[in-house]
Amino acid sequence: MNTPVIAIHGGAGTITRSALSAADEANYHRELKAILTSAQAVLTAGGSALDAVTEAVRLLEDCPLFNAGKGAVYTRAGTHELDAAIMDGATLKAGAVANVTCVRNPVIAARTVMEKSAHVLLAGCGADAFARQQGLDIVDPTYYQTEARHQQWLRVREQSGMMLDHDAASFTFRESAHGTTPVDPIEPIDPDNKFGTVGAVALDMHGNVAAATSTGGITNKQVGRVGDTPLIGAGCYAANATAAVSATGTGEVFMRTVAAYDVAARMAYAGATLQEAMEQVVMEVLPAYEGRGGLIAVDADGNLALTFNTEGMYRGYARGGDTPVTAIYK
Amino acid sequence: MNTPVIAIHGGAGTITRSALSAADEANYHRELKAILTSAQAVLTAGGSALDAVTEAVRLLEDCPLFNAGKGAVYTRAGTHELDAAIMDGATLKAGAVANVTCVRNPVIAARTVMEKSAHVLLAGCGADAFARQQGLDIVDPTYYQTEARHQQWLRVREQSGMMLDHDAASFTFRESAHGTTPVDPIEPIDPDNKFGTVGAVALDMHGNVAAATSTGGITNKQVGRVGDTPLIGAGCYAANATAAVSATGTGEVFMRTVAAYDVAARMAYAGATLQEAMEQVVMEVLPAYEGRGGLIAVDADGNLALTFNTEGMYRGYARGGDTPVTAIYK
Repeated sequence: MNTPVIAIHGGAGTITRSALSAADEANYHRELKAILTSAQAVLTAGGSALDAVTEAVRLLEDCPLFNAGKGAVYTRAGTHELDAAIMDGATLKAGAVANVTCVRNPVIAARTVMEKSAHVLLAGCGADAFARQQGLDIVDPTYYQTEARHQQWLRVREQSGMMLDHDAASFTFRESAHGTTPVDPIEPIDPDNKFGTVGAVALDMHGNVAAATSTGGITNKQVGRVGDTPLIGAGCYAANATAAVSATGTGEVFMRTVAAYDVAARMAYAGATLQEAMEQVVMEVLPAYEGRGGLIAVDADGNLALTFNTEGMYRGYARGGDTPVTAIYK
Repeated sequence: MNTPVIAIHGGAGTITRSALSAADEANYHRELKAILTSAQAVLTAGGSALDAVTEAVRLLEDCPLFNAGKGAVYTRAGTHELDAAIMDGATLKAGAVANVTCVRNPVIAARTVMEKSAHVLLAGCGADAFARQQGLDIVDPTYYQTEARHQQWLRVREQSGMMLDHDAASFTFRESAHGTTPVDPIEPIDPDNKFGTVGAVALDMHGNVAAATSTGGITNKQVGRVGDTPLIGAGCYAANATAAVSATGTGEVFMRTVAAYDVAARMAYAGATLQEAMEQVVMEVLPAYEGRGGLIAVDADGNLALTFNTEGMYRGYARGGDTPVTAIYK
């Protein structure tokens, strides 16, 4: 029996100590830890890596701090288009959705594509229709909205630019009887330099790995833009023989370099360890094409790597029943 | 100066000698040869690999014999949704469109995404809107229709199935003052077993490689389904350091195995020759997941491979100014 491992990320970018207040920092740690604890429970109960990454990404989607599901960024048209992928390392089965607009949890839609369709990727209206047919949790597009993202969008529109991320430090938190919940933004901190995709990788007791990734994309993005997140091999990949990998960053570079699969290929064909392969891809390949961001990965031996070439990456992991470890900065 | 090379494919599948009449066979050869000759002229005039594959795939899209552009298959809704990708091996720049519905030449749209947008992949309405904004050749959806594909769709609907391909042998040809043109189908021959994606790979005099792939997808496919064709690393990949690769076959397996990039990775990390890498992917990896179809590839040394695990693949190549070579069967 393997000691199970779960790791998650909530985006990477220019996240510096000065940008986040101690209280905000604590809130990010608390959210990451709670999500890790839930996914860890799936694994320690003997559940599959596939179930653990589904649960972790579902919770990341539901948390408005992260740019996926609730709290997804706005497109140029003021709408939301969400992408997600999932892959089972035991079978190489995979499922993904791109540009869905009414699905509460895109990762569940991705998993349903994998399990209930003959396809790997459904996009746009067809993906929304499939989710409805399959009885998934359908939401009004207003569900995704948060005031923080809306303000972020208005700022970016004003600058006529596109923002490659969620705006981590612009959240603050409100204490209430229901606990601490994130509310309106204070001010933007280097909003162009954070990548808000979320993801999870896991190894279960049975020796199987899995990966899942989900995102709202880029603030003020062109309608129809699909990044690396829902593309098997780019933003998500899993194979027991190599590793489970989930990406966050400048999606277009991850697509051109087939970043997630490149980690696996270096392990399979060049004899690289997981750590070596991750360092090569994140620190050498991606920067050569101005690719910024990070990857998290786990292999079937339980080796774990959370590697990023940005100032910070919201991340964490839990091994066996140990207390989850979370981190933000380098 | 390198001797330039161009290779194309027009789909793979169960294409047996008994299924095609001698006259139909000759017509496929003639179309393939004409397209190769045009693309070859780009290269021998000193043009780029990128321009050569664009020209080859544009002509394959315009030819109603092949399942891309004019002659694309029908979705379950009786509509057409087209996918294409292109990649420049010199820069790793790439562009792609998925589920476009009004663009005459999806490969031109893919190239425009590469050259005129900040993105790699645009899908659905957003991709159509981008093509319109960019002044590309916009067509009414009826443009894609051919009687052969319509009949094929009606047959497949009746069987309540999905057909993984165009139905090569169901075309016949009409002689006229304007030459021989394909007309209505005679009868379906093993319609479930042909994969109608088209593609091209090229090496130019300057030592750069490029690849492009385009498709109408699967007959009677679910609306929104995206296959391997527009996904960099799955159905299309190009890098001068390794090879330019274009795929045709059971798309979902090519996506799960990241087939096009896998060829490049085996060359880069395992020291495989182009031929070895192609044999491994097409004859070992794909069949392990019931993947059927083929890949064509060229590397910067001018090595060429056209490898398929089906009974036939419409294909051809031309080296330097030599007369193009075309083939259908093993």
